[in-house]
Amino acid sequence: MKNAMFYHAGCPVCVSAEESITTVIDRDRYDVEIVHLREARDRIAEAESRGVISVPALVVEGRALHINFGASLDDVKA
Amino acid sequence: MKNAMFYHAGCPVCVSAEESITTVIDRDRYDVEIVHLREARDRIAEAESRGVISVPALVVEGRALHINFGASLDDVKA
Repeated sequence: MKNAMFYHAGCPVCVSAEESITTVIDRDRYDVEIVHLREARDRIAEAESRGVISVPALVVEGRALHINFGASLDDVKA
Repeated sequence: MKNAMFYHAGCPVCVSAEESITTVIDRDRYDVEIVHLREARDRIAEAESRGVISVPALVVEGRALHINFGASLDDVKA
């Protein structure tokens, strides 16, 4: 199993994207971890180091996929 | 099988997103059709009607997921 990280901030766009991604991703090959960055603020730096600049974002196979736009990471930090 | 449509315009961001999406999506449940909108200009209206406003975008389960940003649909039309 490979890891996939879904970073979000609880916004409506985030919830919608989370539903879509967790539905379509191949769960036989990917473990999806959902990380709420407003609740786990100590993981904002981790998201940033993986190339996340806005939420919601899926990090998988070494790439950050920003899915629609909920909030910038700077806004999440504020 | 359900259909998923991946709309793109051949840009580097599109190619990268296509690689990621076609890798992680559950191919046992989704048929992914790749549509190059600069080559299939007659399908731009179809993409637009499904909520696509920029490429690359994945339309699945009735939702348009814009993945990173390559170009606006207006630019693709131009």
